[in-house]
Amino acid sequence: MSVEKTGVAVLGLGSMGSALAGALLAGGHAVRVWNRTPGKAGELVARGAREAGSVAEAVDGSDVVIVCILDYGDVGPLLEQAGGPAGLQGRVVVNVTNGSPEEAREMAKRVAALGGAYLDGGIMAVPEILATPQAFVLYSGSRTAFETYRGLLDSFARSVYLGEDPGLAPLNDLALLSGMYGMFGGFAHAAALIRSAGGPVAGFTSTLLVPWIQAMAGALPAMAEQVDSGDYSVTGSPLAMQVSHDAIGDVSRAQGVSPELWAPVLALMERRVADGHGSEGFAGVVELLKG
Amino acid sequence: MSVEKTGVAVLGLGSMGSALAGALLAGGHAVRVWNRTPGKAGELVARGAREAGSVAEAVDGSDVVIVCILDYGDVGPLLEQAGGPAGLQGRVVVNVTNGSPEEAREMAKRVAALGGAYLDGGIMAVPEILATPQAFVLYSGSRTAFETYRGLLDSFARSVYLGEDPGLAPLNDLALLSGMYGMFGGFAHAAALIRSAGGPVAGFTSTLLVPWIQAMAGALPAMAEQVDSGDYSVTGSPLAMQVSHDAIGDVSRAQGVSPELWAPVLALMERRVADGHGSEGFAGVVELLKG
Repeated sequence: MSVEKTGVAVLGLGSMGSALAGALLAGGHAVRVWNRTPGKAGELVARGAREAGSVAEAVDGSDVVIVCILDYGDVGPLLEQAGGPAGLQGRVVVNVTNGSPEEAREMAKRVAALGGAYLDGGIMAVPEILATPQAFVLYSGSRTAFETYRGLLDSFARSVYLGEDPGLAPLNDLALLSGMYGMFGGFAHAAALIRSAGGPVAGFTSTLLVPWIQAMAGALPAMAEQVDSGDYSVTGSPLAMQVSHDAIGDVSRAQGVSPELWAPVLALMERRVADGHGSEGFAGVVELLKG
Repeated sequence: MSVEKTGVAVLGLGSMGSALAGALLAGGHAVRVWNRTPGKAGELVARGAREAGSVAEAVDGSDVVIVCILDYGDVGPLLEQAGGPAGLQGRVVVNVTNGSPEEAREMAKRVAALGGAYLDGGIMAVPEILATPQAFVLYSGSRTAFETYRGLLDSFARSVYLGEDPGLAPLNDLALLSGMYGMFGGFAHAAALIRSAGGPVAGFTSTLLVPWIQAMAGALPAMAEQVDSGDYSVTGSPLAMQVSHDAIGDVSRAQGVSPELWAPVLALMERRVADGHGSEGFAGVVELLKG
């Protein structure tokens, strides 16, 4: 085996932290694990991990420190337990705790002050699909750290490096989540409509909605290019035609389904038409979301 | 060639009507076309269609009458030009004009009074992708008519028959559209976030958002089964955890991006948590959209 064995500390053994530690063990690395409340490490220890009694013990001898806890506000104090001002000297902190771009930038400075290099990570997966082809992890921060430990990070999932600004991973993470919630909201409205007609939702979803969503997602890259270029020349239906008659709203109300998730999308399209862009495509609504 | 040559009238030669007529010609059928304003049939005539000077002339000798016009309110009067009370005797009307479930039910009665059988159709495609594997067409109404002419209808795209109630095709059509608009709205918010950080949107969309949306669409069938069963036991993150901290809203506001498309989704999740379902999954919000 030519796998390079790297010492890694995993701080935080919730379901995601445990999955990360498991993936590292599967990758052949020397894993030390720590959790604020003990007793979560049993299975990982059985698979070869070493349970540390303190953060300092976990970090000691580890080249990479993975932080996966619930509250971003606790990450800094935790890392300061790593053994004084030099506790992170020469080490790389990979923080996958969910936070904001601003918090990530602050954390990078704090880690630098402790002597470490910093990567912020956004895990685009639930623990169950970690280390499957569907999963990926966004990273931003030290390019050197990313390139040095890319092989190790690939144990988790496909690694995507976004740039030196540590805020890029959380920003892209939240952008992806907002895209997902839009789709989930669309599903909820569609499901309520189908249900209002007495139909089961499962067949509709698997045979019609999912293929339709996946096909229509194919239209997004062209829409994205329009956002980048500012040229919203229509390719499909012009906005004015899309809003000329609120069929979704009318039928929803007739079926007793609340249009509350649809109404804001319609309102945005209508504002864009009112602004004189009725002959253009949907993507132009992005102009109205800018501050 | 064993293609059965069926006489088909296509009423309405907008971009979709023309695409339908073209698909029928490609399928080897005898096509008569008619448009309210003449002069749209040139290319189709060159490919073998016969341009009719009146609706009656188009319908005469046609077994199937496709109606694809802009305004549902014009469909009935149009069909009444088909040659008096017996003008549709023994013929099948396939109306793909966009309308509501109620309008489709009324139209079925009106066509029956003229002696015809009725199918309402919802074309899930733009004209450009008609007759490609991505496209499909929803049908509801006479099962006999659908089964008799299924081969002909398959010229357009994959045919999906939903049931005898003529309102089912428009209902499912609008449900799919509402799902699509949810996804498009999610894209718009995500694009605004990425743009707010100065990044181009195209790379983000094609390498991250589209694969992510397509992967997450895989979660919808399980959510649909929860809607059908009413058992919203969580599989991923419980709702209370999803709404515990409004990271999308906070970061959007910090970046100068309007949260107007995200806020209603969050509000719905928060109401569901307030109703005591915080330990359950997202799909339960469908309960709040019912009238």
